[in-house]
Amino acid sequence: MRPYVFINSAMSADGKISSSLRRQVRISGSEDLLRVDRLRAESDAVMVGVGTIISDDPKLRVKSDSLRSWRLERGMPENPLRIVADSMARTPIDAEVLGPGCVIAVSRSAPAERINTLSKRCEIAVIGEDRVDLRELLEMLYQRGVRRLMVEGGGILNWSLIEQGLVDEICVFVGPMVIGGRDAPTLVDGRGFAEKFQRLELVSTERIDDGLLIKWRVVRSA
Amino acid sequence: MRPYVFINSAMSADGKISSSLRRQVRISGSEDLLRVDRLRAESDAVMVGVGTIISDDPKLRVKSDSLRSWRLERGMPENPLRIVADSMARTPIDAEVLGPGCVIAVSRSAPAERINTLSKRCEIAVIGEDRVDLRELLEMLYQRGVRRLMVEGGGILNWSLIEQGLVDEICVFVGPMVIGGRDAPTLVDGRGFAEKFQRLELVSTERIDDGLLIKWRVVRSA
Repeated sequence: MRPYVFINSAMSADGKISSSLRRQVRISGSEDLLRVDRLRAESDAVMVGVGTIISDDPKLRVKSDSLRSWRLERGMPENPLRIVADSMARTPIDAEVLGPGCVIAVSRSAPAERINTLSKRCEIAVIGEDRVDLRELLEMLYQRGVRRLMVEGGGILNWSLIEQGLVDEICVFVGPMVIGGRDAPTLVDGRGFAEKFQRLELVSTERIDDGLLIKWRVVRSA
Repeated sequence: MRPYVFINSAMSADGKISSSLRRQVRISGSEDLLRVDRLRAESDAVMVGVGTIISDDPKLRVKSDSLRSWRLERGMPENPLRIVADSMARTPIDAEVLGPGCVIAVSRSAPAERINTLSKRCEIAVIGEDRVDLRELLEMLYQRGVRRLMVEGGGILNWSLIEQGLVDEICVFVGPMVIGGRDAPTLVDGRGFAEKFQRLELVSTERIDDGLLIKWRVVRSA
């Protein structure tokens, strides 16, 4: 058993989640940012890949006071669990994501001293040989009570999860801009499918800010 | 003066126009293919980059008999002009695009013997030093009566045109699939914008086939 997994991301009209310089780009408008905060508040855990930690240093906590109160009133922790998929334990020791409620998932190939250092600021889960075994990680999270997991990128984690059939829904805000660039990170990077592509089903579209929110359901092959 | 320039393309939900193998991928459904044929029939010229010629070998002609008749009745040629941006004259001599009504635009750096060979099967326009000067090419097309130019990719030509401010509209069918891949061609490749991104304005969205047709207007900076 694993949680319900949905990817939430913002991309440009040409599918980029950042520029080729990998600097954080503000694609979402204010309405979309509120929506993302609500989605976080409704999730049991939020997950990102280490690349996103290194380039964006996100807090991954619920920003709105009232949404945090809403969670507390329901007996939930103030913020969802924060999970980082980080096979080689590269998360910087001063990363915003660290602190109570943060789990860094590393592989058995991660350097011991990196694990030691990080373990002072968060929980460490060692899962998988050379790379974090995402399926096992999701099972572990399920056993800890995580039923709804929000994935906030980046393109490599998205790819690994989709490739392994571990994603149920993709929710993407398409911002009104072209970023361009052969080397700019896209919504789904990694090796990519060569022939049998992952089919989706269009669930809904909605205009928000000056862009478009698209929800796709990931179609399971029979 | 230049023609009204619109990009028409199909991409996956993650912004890819092909797989990392660069094989042609059927992203559009049958309704979208009819729409593309109508768009061609309504255009004075259709343009692609040489990469698209090499990987897809498209005919770039109007498929529907009735649409071709519709053009003839209006005193237009059966098919729009077919333009290939091909700085080094790499278009294969047996490419489907060649024949009457085809113009290969090359730079002054293109090998003379390639130009000679190709000139037996199409018109050659030599424009620009190392690369085809797209602005000049569009001016030339305008002088020849082209008022409406449809750009059918790929990502490098799209980038060059957008970077130079030569695109008025982007029309993209988003197909219900994930292709993925760091190396897969995207809607807009090339160098990409580093900081000042090209702004768009959302014109319309429409569900067709099992995907989504999105029209963006390219915003001119004042």
